[in-house]
Amino acid sequence: MSIRIGIYGYGNLGRGVESAIRQNKDMELVAVFTRRDPSTVSLATEGVAVIHADKASDYTDKIDVMIICGGSATDLPEQTPALATLFNVVDSFDTHAKIPEHFSAVDNAAKASGKVALISCGWDPGMFSLNRLYADAILPEGKDYTFWGKGVSQGHSDAIRRVDGVLDGKQYTIPCEDALDAVRSGKEPELTTREKHTRECFVVAEEGADRERIAEEIKNMPNYFADYDTTVNFITAEELRRDHSGIPHGGFVIRSGKTGLNSEHNHIIEYSLKLDSNPEFTASVIVAYARAVSKMSAASECGCKTVFDVPPAYLSQKSPEELRKTML
Amino acid sequence: MSIRIGIYGYGNLGRGVESAIRQNKDMELVAVFTRRDPSTVSLATEGVAVIHADKASDYTDKIDVMIICGGSATDLPEQTPALATLFNVVDSFDTHAKIPEHFSAVDNAAKASGKVALISCGWDPGMFSLNRLYADAILPEGKDYTFWGKGVSQGHSDAIRRVDGVLDGKQYTIPCEDALDAVRSGKEPELTTREKHTRECFVVAEEGADRERIAEEIKNMPNYFADYDTTVNFITAEELRRDHSGIPHGGFVIRSGKTGLNSEHNHIIEYSLKLDSNPEFTASVIVAYARAVSKMSAASECGCKTVFDVPPAYLSQKSPEELRKTML
Repeated sequence: MSIRIGIYGYGNLGRGVESAIRQNKDMELVAVFTRRDPSTVSLATEGVAVIHADKASDYTDKIDVMIICGGSATDLPEQTPALATLFNVVDSFDTHAKIPEHFSAVDNAAKASGKVALISCGWDPGMFSLNRLYADAILPEGKDYTFWGKGVSQGHSDAIRRVDGVLDGKQYTIPCEDALDAVRSGKEPELTTREKHTRECFVVAEEGADRERIAEEIKNMPNYFADYDTTVNFITAEELRRDHSGIPHGGFVIRSGKTGLNSEHNHIIEYSLKLDSNPEFTASVIVAYARAVSKMSAASECGCKTVFDVPPAYLSQKSPEELRKTML
Repeated sequence: MSIRIGIYGYGNLGRGVESAIRQNKDMELVAVFTRRDPSTVSLATEGVAVIHADKASDYTDKIDVMIICGGSATDLPEQTPALATLFNVVDSFDTHAKIPEHFSAVDNAAKASGKVALISCGWDPGMFSLNRLYADAILPEGKDYTFWGKGVSQGHSDAIRRVDGVLDGKQYTIPCEDALDAVRSGKEPELTTREKHTRECFVVAEEGADRERIAEEIKNMPNYFADYDTTVNFITAEELRRDHSGIPHGGFVIRSGKTGLNSEHNHIIEYSLKLDSNPEFTASVIVAYARAVSKMSAASECGCKTVFDVPPAYLSQKSPEELRKTML
């Protein structure tokens, strides 16, 4: 019996989920739900229905786990609690500061319906969070550090595009090698925002635009760039398309901690990701957790969960016996 | 209420556990059990009882989790099932090939007694196993690699010491940088044993011993050294003590995998450890899992478990709410 999956929202992440499901033999994509006119949406997978989002409730007995691929700003706070009244769900809610509030809304919905709802899945929040937790529990006397990049930040790229005179742009977040080295040395340095990451922008400007003014405006933008060393490169639309159309990302979670009666021994735990496609990797994590959600639901669990609550074995296609034999 | 811990066996690992407990405010060391004459054993922690191993059964209502610090070859196959009839236990059984057999024996004992018994805890098996599982579940189309070192292998050091004419010796396992780089490139190379690690030996020879013969004997020792490029350095007992008395270790678990409709995107997941003290780090992992065992027992679970079965949140001192707020 395959795990029957629905995808709710068909953007970059939804397409990544579709692609990831094809790599998992125990899963089957049943339908994609969209707020657009379904006749305008064509999938990469043949034979899969495209259904209007309003009709999702007709599919409660055809779908084991609904993967919600909306955005965190406005979609998920509404969609996840609503869909958790009908389905087991997974989302990738990533507004860290609002997770407790989102958890509470989703938990109420999922407990009422008896469904399992896993929120904030992906790599940060997600795999990075897990690694922060494990390392913190193992080395209580220590300090942890998260670095992001090198990778494209969608939010910062959007911010560039809002500057007057900018036609298009892309921003890379880059971790500072010196900071990484200092952390790995075990010295537990205090690092400022500026010392941890730099930001590199590639900008296509309107013809005749004042490039100096654009660069200054970007570099001094509060919240986004002002606290960082930012470089701005002007390139052509053709160069942007040719050299910067990918969505790579990644990063590092490092914990440095001490053990011993006199704290005489130092230890470094490091987890890193180097990803060619941020949405496809995020989707791959989500799909593994969709399997876990179907197992938790089969075990009569319900309510809101996060990656912290899921026994690792639930993520795998392999049986517990096979896992112990081949992976332990 | 503290989690009341017993330590069964007081060698390097037992001392590491004692030291780790002092870093965890929710834990209390109740007693150390030893097969030696208790009057000959002095602990680093004041006020803790040293009890003969034969008297362990007197402590069933005074200890929440017994941490078994025996060796995998002969101690644990006997001790863990026996102690699991009396206590919740954790061990660090690390003979990978015999894990299914050990699991079965411990599971029978723990199910009969209603206790929780977590086996094969530490970093390999343990944290490395977890990282193999997570990465395999996330990137089903890929290949994983485990490298060990740079670090001291106790088994290989023992093997050196058994060579005729050798007074003392220490062996370091060293991962090959070229192999690490090839794996990180995403090319999924096939690597031979020789290509993955080298072995470096520091040997104190008897006066007048035939060093050439000793070096050849080490380098050609089957199972231990014959399949590796091995270097043998002769040093004095004083140099060995001065430069090689630590027990560092570490290593890397790397998975390289592909996503996308045409497998066009590559991803690298890397987990690494750099440890000044192998036994103290292993002990730190075990102590975090002892907390998890006490929580699983409180939730009325029983039977044999591995790190694959434990929800990550159980390892932490922090509440689920605090974890979601600060670590997710």
